[in-house]
Order: sequence, then C-alpha cells, then structure tokens
Amino acid sequence: MATRDSGAKVVIVGAGFAGLWAARRLGRKGFSVRLMDRNNYHTFLPLIYQAATAVIEPEQIAYPLRAVFKKHPRVSFTLAEVREADFAARVVRTARGREYSYDYLVLAPGSETTFFGVPGAAEHAFRLKSLEQAIGFRNHALACFERAAAEEDQGAARRLLTFVVVGGGPTGVEFAGALAELALGPLAGDFPGLNTSQVRVVLLEAAQRVLPTFPPGLSDYTLGRLSRMGVEVWLNSAVARVGADSVELVGGESLPTESVVWTAGVTGARAPGFSDARVSRGAGGRLLAGPTLQLPGHPEVFVAGDACKPGEADPPMNAPAAIAQGRLAAENISRLAAGKEPREYVYRDKGQLATIGRSAAVAVMWGRTFKGLTAWAVWLLVHLVHIIGFRNRLLVLVNWMWNYFFHERGIRIIFPSDPHGPEPGRLPEKGHQ
Amino acid sequence: MATRDSGAKVVIVGAGFAGLWAARRLGRKGFSVRLMDRNNYHTFLPLIYQAATAVIEPEQIAYPLRAVFKKHPRVSFTLAEVREADFAARVVRTARGREYSYDYLVLAPGSETTFFGVPGAAEHAFRLKSLEQAIGFRNHALACFERAAAEEDQGAARRLLTFVVVGGGPTGVEFAGALAELALGPLAGDFPGLNTSQVRVVLLEAAQRVLPTFPPGLSDYTLGRLSRMGVEVWLNSAVARVGADSVELVGGESLPTESVVWTAGVTGARAPGFSDARVSRGAGGRLLAGPTLQLPGHPEVFVAGDACKPGEADPPMNAPAAIAQGRLAAENISRLAAGKEPREYVYRDKGQLATIGRSAAVAVMWGRTFKGLTAWAVWLLVHLVHIIGFRNRLLVLVNWMWNYFFHERGIRIIFPSDPHGPEPGRLPEKGHQ
Repeated sequence: MATRDSGAKVVIVGAGFAGLWAARRLGRKGFSVRLMDRNNYHTFLPLIYQAATAVIEPEQIAYPLRAVFKKHPRVSFTLAEVREADFAARVVRTARGREYSYDYLVLAPGSETTFFGVPGAAEHAFRLKSLEQAIGFRNHALACFERAAAEEDQGAARRLLTFVVVGGGPTGVEFAGALAELALGPLAGDFPGLNTSQVRVVLLEAAQRVLPTFPPGLSDYTLGRLSRMGVEVWLNSAVARVGADSVELVGGESLPTESVVWTAGVTGARAPGFSDARVSRGAGGRLLAGPTLQLPGHPEVFVAGDACKPGEADPPMNAPAAIAQGRLAAENISRLAAGKEPREYVYRDKGQLATIGRSAAVAVMWGRTFKGLTAWAVWLLVHLVHIIGFRNRLLVLVNWMWNYFFHERGIRIIFPSDPHGPEPGRLPEKGHQ
Repeated sequence: MATRDSGAKVVIVGAGFAGLWAARRLGRKGFSVRLMDRNNYHTFLPLIYQAATAVIEPEQIAYPLRAVFKKHPRVSFTLAEVREADFAARVVRTARGREYSYDYLVLAPGSETTFFGVPGAAEHAFRLKSLEQAIGFRNHALACFERAAAEEDQGAARRLLTFVVVGGGPTGVEFAGALAELALGPLAGDFPGLNTSQVRVVLLEAAQRVLPTFPPGLSDYTLGRLSRMGVEVWLNSAVARVGADSVELVGGESLPTESVVWTAGVTGARAPGFSDARVSRGAGGRLLAGPTLQLPGHPEVFVAGDACKPGEADPPMNAPAAIAQGRLAAENISRLAAGKEPREYVYRDKGQLATIGRSAAVAVMWGRTFKGLTAWAVWLLVHLVHIIGFRNRLLVLVNWMWNYFFHERGIRIIFPSDPHGPEPGRLPEKGHQ
C-alpha cells in the first residue's frame, strides 16, 4: 500500500461538494490528485433556484475549478465525462475512450432528478439540477409571459401563466416562493396590459404538509407565508401524469399549464459504467458503500456525496452531508496510505434551512427552530459564506440587495435566445439532463 | 397627417441604440409606440468583447426592454422578428405572420458582420455581434485550452493555442488586447503543465497600421502596447481564406488555428423583407435615406443607426451616431405630426475611443488626442456612464476592479456546456449570426 509520501494517485470523479472537498484535503496531504468533471466549474446547487428565477446571474454560482486548485500544485483537473470505472484494472474510462489509472478512486457523481415513473414527467417537466436547466426554465417562464401578452384566447393565456411546482420539500418551497415573487412582482409590472389575476403559482405536495422533514409548526408557518405570497399550495396532491399542456393529479383533477417544474425526488446519478451489475444500489438509487465509505470488495474505491449510501447510516442527500463524506473519504485514503484503519462515517445533523421569500425562512439548527426574519438572516449568512470566491459572493450580495430593496430582478432576459427563432410561440428545449 | 395629441402609431424595428433612443423620445411626446426586437433585451455592444473574454457576465450588458419602458406607459414592447415592411399597406409583418400597422415607421435593424466574400470565413470565423456569439467564443477558447492540455501532439497543441483576430480597427484592437490578457494571464496560470510560450494571439490588419481612422501617432502607440502585451500584430496582412484549422493570407502564408475571430467589417442588417428590390443600399450595405432620415418616396418611413446612410453624410457605424439618428428620427416624426418641416441630419464627431489593455487606451476627443492612463480613464467613464441600469453598472465595475487589481477573470467557465458531450475535442457551434 502506498505511503503518505509516495504520491499515490487518487482519481476523483465529480466536482460537486463531495469531490471538491475530498480533492482539497488530499491535495494538501501529498497525494497526486486528478479531479474529473464534465464541467470546468463547480456548481453551487443550493442557489440554483435563484438562477432559475432571475435573481442572480448563473455564472455567479459557478466557480472555475482550475481557479480553485491554482494553489494546490498536486491537484490536476481533467474536463471529461467518466463513463466507466474498471475496478479490476484500476482505471477510469472517459466518453472519448481515454484511460486514467488510480491507486485510490473516489466516486462522487452526485444525483439526478427522479420522476418515480410518472408518465410524461421525464419528457415535459423542467428539472433544477444544472445551470443549463435553470436557464432553460428562466427563458421558458419569461417567454410564457411574452406569449400570453400576444395571446387573444383567454384560456391559452391562463394556461401560459400557470406555473406548477411538484414537491413541497425545501427546493420546491424555495423555488415556488422565488417564482411567485418574480411572477407577481417585477413580471406583472412588465406587462401592464396583462390581467395579472391570471398568474398562478401552484405548489403540489403529495403529503399532508409542506417541508415534511421539518417540525409541523414550521410547516404551518411556511404554508401561511406561501399563501400570503400568492402561492396556491395543494396538499395531498400526487401527480398522475404530466402532459405538454397540462398536469393531471391522482384524484383526477387536471390543471392546464406548460410549465411543470419537478423537485419531488432525487436519485444517485446513473453513470453508464457504474451499472447495477457492478455495484449495488440502495434507497434513493445510491451506491451501497460500507460504513467507512469503501465499496464492498474494493477497499481502494470510496463513494461520497449524494450517490453514497454509507453502511447503516441514511444521511440526507444535501451539501453538508456531501462535504462531510468528501472529507472523510480523503481522511480514510490518507489513513490507508499510512497503514492505519479507516474511520466510520457518522452522520451529524447540521440542521435544515429553507427560505420562503423576502424576510421569511424556516430553520432547524443548533437544537432550536427559527422562523421569519431570524431564520432568513441565518439562511442568508450560511449561503453567502459557502459561495466559493469573494467576487461571486460580492456579486450575489449586490443582486440580493437589489432584489430586496427594489423588488427588481435585472436578469429577466431570455438568453440565449432560441436559435430556431426567437418569436413567442416556440417552446425552448427543457434542458438536457 | 396625425397631430401631436392624436396618439399616432409609431412602429420601431430594432431595440439597439437608435431604436431605443427613438422610442424613449417618442414615448414622451404622446405617440403610441410599439418597439419590436427579436430579443427581450437591449445589448450594450461596445462591451461585447469583454463578454467574449470572460471579463463580465453577459447578462450585465443586457438590459430587459420592458424594464426600460416601465415608466413610459405609451411605449409597448413586442418580442418578434420582423420579416417584412409593407410600405403600401403601412404594416410590418413578423416571422410568424402577425401584422402591426403604423402611421410612422422607424427602421433600426442594426448591422451584421460582413466577410467581403473571403472563402470559408462565414463558415469558420467567429463573430462578435451578439451575446450568443460572444459566449460561443468564450466557451470555444476555454475548450481549446482544455483540449491542448490533453493533447500529446505538439503541433496540434500549438494550433489549439493560436488565436487569430482579423481586423485592426477599434473592435479588433480591444478584443485582441483583452484576449491576450486572458490567455497569457489567468489562463496560462490555470494550466501549469502547458507550455505557455505556445500561446499566440495574432492580430491581422490589411492596412499599413492599426486603428486606421485614428491619428498615426496613436496607431504607433497602440502597436507598441499590443506588442508588449504579447499580441503579434501583422500589418499589410489580408486574409485569403479561412479553413477549419488554418487561416491563409493573401501573400500565401498559412497559420494553423481553430480560432479565427472576424472583426474586419460590418454591413447594414439584411432583413429579408427590406430587400434591395424595395430599398436602395449604399456604402456599407446601408439603406439610402434622405438627409432627414426619411426613405425616398416614403416620408413616413425613417431609417436610423448602423443600417442608415443619411443623404450625403457618411457617419461611422457606431453607438454615438446611432443615438443621434434615433433622436433625430423621433424629433422629425414629432415635427411631421405637428405639421412642421423635418430637420436634416448633421454628423457631429463625438470622438473615437479604443482601449488596449490595463491602463492603456487611445482617444480622440474634444479636438485633442489622449493615450495611456488618461485615455483609459476617459474610456472607463464613458462606457460605465452609458451602461443602462445602475445594478449593471455596479456589477460591471466590480468585475473591472477584480480584473484590474487581481488580474483575475472569474467567468472563465465553459457554459452552457455542449449538449452533445462536454469533453474536450468537440468544437462548440460558432454561434448563429
């Protein structure tokens, strides 16, 4: 087994929170680290809903990976889509057939949206798991308003102005709130000829309350705030089918809309080469790792982040858990290289946060619950601190201030425009997954 | 003829500098104004080269048109591509067949890149006339570095790292300078394994000096500065052919490159319905208007901006001239409606400005010439003042400060990624015109 100073080669697949934190730690410990990702930037996914609702420029939550590792000479970055990990040969293979060998491998491919087999959802619903998807929705929503303004058929206009968010978890709540602020605020003002009473933001939740993982009191508070902001919250409402111009509920009700955003489920990312034949998958489509994050039978292969189901633990698929796992994977590789026993993963609850709208959020932290302005301030601080790069932090802050004080969103531009013709009436692509 | 208070209908085609300024003025004078554009935003084209070189977020030089006219209740915006103007029926027709009638029409379609018939240029050269094109080049240039880093063939790496800018006018000089600062600064630092002596930025100018419209002393200064910044300036170098992986000069020399950016020529925009059968075109492919900006035989149709050749005057195709013409078109429509004679256009030289790089620019203004830091400060101020919207101004300033003090460009992200596969080795599309 390689020693600490041997410069053992570590390949890390995925530069999300888990992969990024693992790379940073391993780079400082003398390993020769190759970080691989299909994008040349890290995406700060917790704020992706703000890119989708024209609060911030998408570039502000993207950070160039080569800039992150400028001061880590032992970490190199490779822009590539990893298609296969060959555990026997200890190489990963990219979509273009290049091979990279490793002594240790960290699999941190993240997660993707799952539709639980609901017919039509994969074809017609928007997702919020990449910047491309966020921009796809922003352009689509703005184009819907433009089309409604040129529409003489009242039914069609109403359908164009109905936005449906599926899933009442933190992402669904945050997105529905931000969308209502955009659609009923700056956008309604942009279209003086439009009957803004036609604008609807509907949040569908299959369970009996929103934010089911929060204490019931915070769910009630959230429901009240969302309602006052103009969001129609439909509880006990499961989706049966998504069509091009409507969504149908299990109860039989149908809602005409061209804008369904799916936030209801995530599953471990399914890279082709990490097929079920090679690795086992557990709850949430995650790779079944041991309690030390090692893959059974492959002690040199670690799994971390959203795609990891570590032993008996069942951590949430979120950023704090991904960071903790990325750090532990790095720590354990370092321990193995030094001939020590790897440590077991222990889930530590870092709390839960969800913002609802201007000056309103809910939080469970440090054994306490918060709501309203206090929770909102906590949310603001936590997110601002975690955005990588001071420039991005500053620009995001400027945008938030603008949004807060002027109720204004300067980024409500349809961009890039549809290359097939920019005129209202064409649906942009719903964004490749 | 409609009177001032009759609410005569004015249709303005194009929301560039000319169309935007015309709409603002007419909206204040009681006309019922319909502004039409294929984008829902105004593009601040003088800074497009900065979007192409990762200095600023593209959204920061785009301003939503509905926000501009929020306080102008008599100006409405229509997102549409105008295909035809039927002067007899006094209607414009959009790509989707909708018709909008007018009492007065302002044609301000702007300009597009012209390649003077150079073979291969239209297929293989990048243009800088839209945000999509700017981002297309940014992504391409960053991907070239990624591909070069993974390349074992030294000749191929050298070709990937050679960037050729065609045209030594202000756009070519500004772009070449910004590109050299990016490629030899932050990017070279991003790729420690890369032989940065292979990075070349070549500026091709057919004439004997760069900035041919400036005094010769400023051309000399510019040449010296560009050379010190690492730009190879080739004078007397006309392009004979552009290929997928090389550019050939008239003298027979060939330069291997996949990155040719064409800044050498513009022509009045060629909307299909404004064909030569209906309107005459003069120098620069511009519509031949009378000295009052009216189209001969159609006193109710005005032309303004880059697409306008007004009488005997021959103004440059730039923002100050477009703004002056947009204002005069509005003024003359107002005069016609009031039964007065329209005024003739008089070109007033507002000076010329070109930035070269950090603390270096040249300017001809107020009857004087400036170079170096003074000219750079003038350039900075003039551009910052003209960017629409205080938020955009603030964000651009933050980015400029970052770039200036830290020699850092935070936006060097390949985004959106190529939907067909992000791996190096694929050329992104060169951007629809």
